[in-house]
Amino acid sequence: MEYVMCGIAGAIGVPDAAYTVSLMLKALQHRGQEAAGIVSSHDGQFLRRRGWGLVDEVFAHVNIKQELPGQSAIGHVRYQTAGKSDQKSLQEIQPFRGQSQHGHLAIAVNGNLTNYQPLRDALLQKGATLQSHSDSELFMPLVSLSRRPSSWERLAEAVLLTEGASSVLLLDDQGLHAAVDPFGFRPLVWASYQDGWLFASETSAFDIFSVAKSAAIKPGHVVTATKDLVEERCFAWSKTTRQCSFCHVYFNRPDSVVFGQSSYLVRERLGRNLAAEAPAAADLVLAVPDSSNVMALAYAQALGVPFSFGLIRSHYMGRTFITPKQEARELGVRLKLNAVRALIAGKRVVVVDDSLVRGTTARRISQMLRDAGATEVHMRLASPPVTHPCRWGIDTPKRQQLLAARVDSADMARHLGVDSLGYLSRAGLLAAMNDPNGEQHCTSCFTGIHPTEGLPKPTSFLP
Amino acid sequence: MEYVMCGIAGAIGVPDAAYTVSLMLKALQHRGQEAAGIVSSHDGQFLRRRGWGLVDEVFAHVNIKQELPGQSAIGHVRYQTAGKSDQKSLQEIQPFRGQSQHGHLAIAVNGNLTNYQPLRDALLQKGATLQSHSDSELFMPLVSLSRRPSSWERLAEAVLLTEGASSVLLLDDQGLHAAVDPFGFRPLVWASYQDGWLFASETSAFDIFSVAKSAAIKPGHVVTATKDLVEERCFAWSKTTRQCSFCHVYFNRPDSVVFGQSSYLVRERLGRNLAAEAPAAADLVLAVPDSSNVMALAYAQALGVPFSFGLIRSHYMGRTFITPKQEARELGVRLKLNAVRALIAGKRVVVVDDSLVRGTTARRISQMLRDAGATEVHMRLASPPVTHPCRWGIDTPKRQQLLAARVDSADMARHLGVDSLGYLSRAGLLAAMNDPNGEQHCTSCFTGIHPTEGLPKPTSFLP
Amino acid sequence: MEYVMCGIAGAIGVPDAAYTVSLMLKALQHRGQEAAGIVSSHDGQFLRRRGWGLVDEVFAHVNIKQELPGQSAIGHVRYQTAGKSDQKSLQEIQPFRGQSQHGHLAIAVNGNLTNYQPLRDALLQKGATLQSHSDSELFMPLVSLSRRPSSWERLAEAVLLTEGASSVLLLDDQGLHAAVDPFGFRPLVWASYQDGWLFASETSAFDIFSVAKSAAIKPGHVVTATKDLVEERCFAWSKTTRQCSFCHVYFNRPDSVVFGQSSYLVRERLGRNLAAEAPAAADLVLAVPDSSNVMALAYAQALGVPFSFGLIRSHYMGRTFITPKQEARELGVRLKLNAVRALIAGKRVVVVDDSLVRGTTARRISQMLRDAGATEVHMRLASPPVTHPCRWGIDTPKRQQLLAARVDSADMARHLGVDSLGYLSRAGLLAAMNDPNGEQHCTSCFTGIHPTEGLPKPTSFLP
Amino acid sequence: MEYVMCGIAGAIGVPDAAYTVSLMLKALQHRGQEAAGIVSSHDGQFLRRRGWGLVDEVFAHVNIKQELPGQSAIGHVRYQTAGKSDQKSLQEIQPFRGQSQHGHLAIAVNGNLTNYQPLRDALLQKGATLQSHSDSELFMPLVSLSRRPSSWERLAEAVLLTEGASSVLLLDDQGLHAAVDPFGFRPLVWASYQDGWLFASETSAFDIFSVAKSAAIKPGHVVTATKDLVEERCFAWSKTTRQCSFCHVYFNRPDSVVFGQSSYLVRERLGRNLAAEAPAAADLVLAVPDSSNVMALAYAQALGVPFSFGLIRSHYMGRTFITPKQEARELGVRLKLNAVRALIAGKRVVVVDDSLVRGTTARRISQMLRDAGATEVHMRLASPPVTHPCRWGIDTPKRQQLLAARVDSADMARHLGVDSLGYLSRAGLLAAMNDPNGEQHCTSCFTGIHPTEGLPKPTSFLP
Repeated sequence: MEYVMCGIAGAIGVPDAAYTVSLMLKALQHRGQEAAGIVSSHDGQFLRRRGWGLVDEVFAHVNIKQELPGQSAIGHVRYQTAGKSDQKSLQEIQPFRGQSQHGHLAIAVNGNLTNYQPLRDALLQKGATLQSHSDSELFMPLVSLSRRPSSWERLAEAVLLTEGASSVLLLDDQGLHAAVDPFGFRPLVWASYQDGWLFASETSAFDIFSVAKSAAIKPGHVVTATKDLVEERCFAWSKTTRQCSFCHVYFNRPDSVVFGQSSYLVRERLGRNLAAEAPAAADLVLAVPDSSNVMALAYAQALGVPFSFGLIRSHYMGRTFITPKQEARELGVRLKLNAVRALIAGKRVVVVDDSLVRGTTARRISQMLRDAGATEVHMRLASPPVTHPCRWGIDTPKRQQLLAARVDSADMARHLGVDSLGYLSRAGLLAAMNDPNGEQHCTSCFTGIHPTEGLPKPTSFLP
Repeated sequence: MEYVMCGIAGAIGVPDAAYTVSLMLKALQHRGQEAAGIVSSHDGQFLRRRGWGLVDEVFAHVNIKQELPGQSAIGHVRYQTAGKSDQKSLQEIQPFRGQSQHGHLAIAVNGNLTNYQPLRDALLQKGATLQSHSDSELFMPLVSLSRRPSSWERLAEAVLLTEGASSVLLLDDQGLHAAVDPFGFRPLVWASYQDGWLFASETSAFDIFSVAKSAAIKPGHVVTATKDLVEERCFAWSKTTRQCSFCHVYFNRPDSVVFGQSSYLVRERLGRNLAAEAPAAADLVLAVPDSSNVMALAYAQALGVPFSFGLIRSHYMGRTFITPKQEARELGVRLKLNAVRALIAGKRVVVVDDSLVRGTTARRISQMLRDAGATEVHMRLASPPVTHPCRWGIDTPKRQQLLAARVDSADMARHLGVDSLGYLSRAGLLAAMNDPNGEQHCTSCFTGIHPTEGLPKPTSFLP
Repeated sequence: MEYVMCGIAGAIGVPDAAYTVSLMLKALQHRGQEAAGIVSSHDGQFLRRRGWGLVDEVFAHVNIKQELPGQSAIGHVRYQTAGKSDQKSLQEIQPFRGQSQHGHLAIAVNGNLTNYQPLRDALLQKGATLQSHSDSELFMPLVSLSRRPSSWERLAEAVLLTEGASSVLLLDDQGLHAAVDPFGFRPLVWASYQDGWLFASETSAFDIFSVAKSAAIKPGHVVTATKDLVEERCFAWSKTTRQCSFCHVYFNRPDSVVFGQSSYLVRERLGRNLAAEAPAAADLVLAVPDSSNVMALAYAQALGVPFSFGLIRSHYMGRTFITPKQEARELGVRLKLNAVRALIAGKRVVVVDDSLVRGTTARRISQMLRDAGATEVHMRLASPPVTHPCRWGIDTPKRQQLLAARVDSADMARHLGVDSLGYLSRAGLLAAMNDPNGEQHCTSCFTGIHPTEGLPKPTSFLP
Repeated sequence: MEYVMCGIAGAIGVPDAAYTVSLMLKALQHRGQEAAGIVSSHDGQFLRRRGWGLVDEVFAHVNIKQELPGQSAIGHVRYQTAGKSDQKSLQEIQPFRGQSQHGHLAIAVNGNLTNYQPLRDALLQKGATLQSHSDSELFMPLVSLSRRPSSWERLAEAVLLTEGASSVLLLDDQGLHAAVDPFGFRPLVWASYQDGWLFASETSAFDIFSVAKSAAIKPGHVVTATKDLVEERCFAWSKTTRQCSFCHVYFNRPDSVVFGQSSYLVRERLGRNLAAEAPAAADLVLAVPDSSNVMALAYAQALGVPFSFGLIRSHYMGRTFITPKQEARELGVRLKLNAVRALIAGKRVVVVDDSLVRGTTARRISQMLRDAGATEVHMRLASPPVTHPCRWGIDTPKRQQLLAARVDSADMARHLGVDSLGYLSRAGLLAAMNDPNGEQHCTSCFTGIHPTEGLPKPTSFLP
């Protein structure tokens, strides 16, 4: 899947903050495997380590406690974000760091700006020098150029000057500041820990430390934490919010609570609603492990059909040496997933997947199941087919790569090589998220309707 | 778990044999993550690449098709085997390779010799020079010193001079030769592929290539494959065999067929037999993903208790940078497994695990479930408690580290912090493997009885 | 020696410009061994590779022609420059690169700013964000913030806003621009080559390409080269210049022509003038290879005393693994230099060195010669003793580390353990450079007199 | 130059023996830049580190004192030795190490076997397994298979079973043993140091430690050193010896004393004899730095023509990134050597080089000097032209690559592009080494006469 997300984490007021952040980034690794970086503040210096690869790889030879000392730090794991894919310059890896009239700055962003080009032009014209091709870097000159007297105001002003999704962590000489844009596209949670505070994209990052109580940073809010105190302020307000529904469908860890809801329970309801909308007559229900496990199990239990582990996933799928690309993609599915012939041969099976994007993996799975002897292969999706790329994510497949945008819904089953195809309606999806009227969630990728079209501009509370 | 296994794979008569072997090693990665190596034969040269780490890491910067050309190759992935753990010399990594009076030799072994010391002394006295501390290396001088006229005889003679478990691949200038010792401790399978043949520890390595038909190499047999033909010969016979039961319980991939049986189906029977022997009254059944998934699901289905994914596993657990070791072990479990609070709170849960070795992870899981709000935590094991280290595996925990060897069975539940503990009997285990009389499987680690004690020496058919 | 220099090189209008620059940087390696970097401009992109170490090490695994394509490029080798020595961040390595309102920029500087702090504060206040601790980076915002309409004016304006030594290469979307400050502290030469132009710190960089004709960029001048044309402009004028005399004494390659003179011929005159001012009665003259070879030979020939290679230098002295530092320094001299006992035993020797800075190596050499059996050891220096750190070089020894600042000239011979000590006067040094009145050269490190004190501010010709 | 040499060093009875060896290997780096390795003996273990590259590169990330502890160690630096040049397997790098009936063994050899093939066949037939393509590895099975009761006898027996050049260091559980073959082809020296002993190819390795007194190991002798005592034994005797004359001409450091003579003084005599045999009328004498420095200076002084540093050598010539090979060779000379135009223009110059092998560099130098404006270029060689490859060195140029084997002596000057060519006679060479009758030195590469032809087989004193 190529939905654009990133993971961010921060800690302040705890010893070895960078080490704490590194553990949270490991827990958020599913949000970005391409690169990782951490900046810590110590003794008037901002130290950074970053690199391409998994958190474990980037920090394999870094003695974090010694090389990134200090009681405050922020970090970032990167999915595919803006920038040509061959621009593998270190410059592109967050957090960004620099020295400004407001002292040291470091910034980590989960989001995407839709007004990148005009905003960039305006900042350059003011004399800014940019180091990367990342839209997130614009927060650096936005803050550097701001004349506002306090950190939280500078950050809030920067968020208000951007359009799009912005969940931002700003580390400066004063403390650690976290902001979410007024529509709340991307999750950001925080918690008290020891004598300080933690920030992360998902609550599963806090579970490592047995931190049970946490809260979402609300849309249009900024939380400012220093060594001594924490303050939450509302800098902008919108009646309607646009929290990402695809996060619950696919992106989040199921053990996370984001946007105030357990993703596990949302996914159970997705599976149950799917069973109601699109039942199937079969001998076995299979998940596509691990992303559709919860939906497939709930679907099976709702229908009373036996659930089974008929598709086995290998978890040693790192950066692979397989080339060329075509062969890599082909072999990739076979190395990642394998059907249990002894179980499947002679059975009618229904595979429940979380979503339908390009359809290529789905087609390979259906072939794999037939090779293993399945007599019928039915496919069910716990969300509507994706028909439009996410405007908030630049590397999503172009529209013509989306199966549901290319192929008539009647033809889709034939195209995927399955005996029947069913999926959840948008209403079923919204119901599962307890948002029957769709006032809080963005479903733009399923509908093509611009998420903020027709909505009033949020009200700013900045002085 | 620290049970000693390794994975071996070979190919002959196929283009880019080393590349084919590298893909099979990836599919066998679960059998060994410590090191990997491949030797290919090309144009009168034996080429080798090996290194510490996962297959992907070792071959990340190797252009396999160019650096390891040729139509025959063997490879090895290494778990923890004999040798002090700090001897991280490349010399220890298989395949071994050398030049002898019989031409080039390369050897990859899955096994452990119990007569290592006397055999080594005898070989040195004949003038042999050894490079490593690995017992598997002894196959090099065994073959080099042999006066027998053909490759298969030299390999068979070598196996007969060893005691213990030996599944061996030998590549020489004549071809690729695969042998299994007369008791058949370790699995080894083979298949025809394109114009040649494949060899591997498990059939899942063949599934990548859609090779559906394969066979086990029978105990006491050697298979000799050249570019042109393949021959299977019996070189020794034993009425009773000793195939590893722990392979089915834990070590194999569930989608593999080894020793002639589907591990998936064996595990389903383990779960069902466990339900019959040790039921539990609970609201939810949880697996410890992924190793006990199949058993836990079968257990739940047999008892009619809802199965659920209440423990979530993170699969980004490579070589980690966490130190010191104590903290690494503590955090390791939390980074690897997390309980879904929203699901578990207020419930009676039963966790089904595959086996009980040291008990440390089990204790941490029970604590994690209570922290997540479980009102009762019951634990069920799909095998008898491990009471003795495996004589065929040198790095298994010492006896005093095995929980069942230290703690009375009555005290075990208390020790693990669970409300009840139940496990499968040896009879239930054997029944699940269709070996009710225990004539084909080794259960030594559950009983402490020497696996070949009292058995007659196998009959040799060597001329 | 720890005099601060760097090497810079640029090429435009030649195929594989970055490759051409890499060869020039190799020829300039003596000017900086700490780090190296190159930026090339290709197809609207500015590409960069940089790293710590020698040019060969940094580019060992870079396919320069493929990874840094394009017909224009600039590069830098770094000596020890400003910034705490443990700040080994890649961010510190030149060329700097960024995007600005004037398009892409890349900058490489050989120089040091004496108004770093106030200039930095002023630039931050205008909203600039800085990435490094290098004073050279200030040229980035200086150019980015400039409102002037053409590249050469922006670069000239930037040089005029700085104080100190500035030989600068600026690569932008228009072309390659080279400027030298009005006092001309640091050398910068250029030449026509094929259909384009080359720029470098010394002419020896051009000799690789058999480019025989080259010219110095005159103080206060800027040369602007595009694919099609080259223009030289005077942007500032000073009657008196301050070209570095220490460059001729020590820093340059003897085969270079800089500031319009051959360093080889200057050094011959230094040796001859030294023989006239400070002769010695001895059996042999020795150089401290290779830096004083030419002076020592000229000294010997002038006095008619046999020259010899009694000190042998090993040239395999890379980054060494010797620790701790004290032992490294001690062993370093012995690994680098060795006395030829068979030649020296029983002789009166005179060692000619280029300069006297800390005196530590000199003391070890005199001891080494006595150990080898010399009956008398006389030392002669081809320049006045260094009494003051260079204001234009931040990492030179602090004043109290300079032997001539600590020890009375009468005591120096005793301190160095030599039978007599003699050195060249400032007048002798200036005469050797054909500047008897000292109007063109800086001798500040020998006198302590501020190089520009009392001089009128240069006249600017900027519109 | 491609004459085959290697450097070996050993230490016993000193703390941190491997560290001591590493420093000696650095001093011997000129004898081999391709690879380096060290084995130390500590606490019943033989530890090894080895790799491709310079000593500094191989040990850059090795904490020698910790990773190679112990009071005895041996090491090796490798030039180009037997084996196809693309076999860059670690297996090829010395010291070799293994376990045998005589305990641990490690071996480092400077030499070449002329009976490699038959000896190898015989050893394989006895059941030996070999790891590399190096002839030196044969010493491993030679010692392992030996039935003799003591280390020195096993080593001496091994040397007597080989033909060719063998200077060998053997480290075993008893101590460190050094042997030189009866003809004494390669140098090996030893010295007492602290409470133990040092061994090395040249004395310059001892000078680091200010060890002034050392001795050559005489042909046919073995020195056995343990912690407590040292013994020297003669195991074979030959009236005539064959010490390498090319070592004095080119290979040794000039500050070394080997075969009992100072290489510096030998080279001075070479230069003087050359002046007598082949004077030249010129304005300047130039050396090709650094290898012909001493000869050129002596030549100039003998003739009364001014010596000068008209060719400047850059010493930053590591493994370079220049490709393809043809360009690398062309640019290599220009990056390594540069002519000082300001000095040379308009002059008649005579270049003195140490030897003439392929003639390619000589031709480039003469062109470079003419480009720099020399009006006449004369070339003088301080040894006879090389007409035959060394039988004791496998990678020397094939006969047809040797200029003197291809081109008539009359044509050579024209071929090299010089106005005149002169060289030293064999008689002049032998006289410079104080061996007028040629009874002690090998001059095979200048004559083509087999070095041991017609000589009686050495008398063995082995019991």
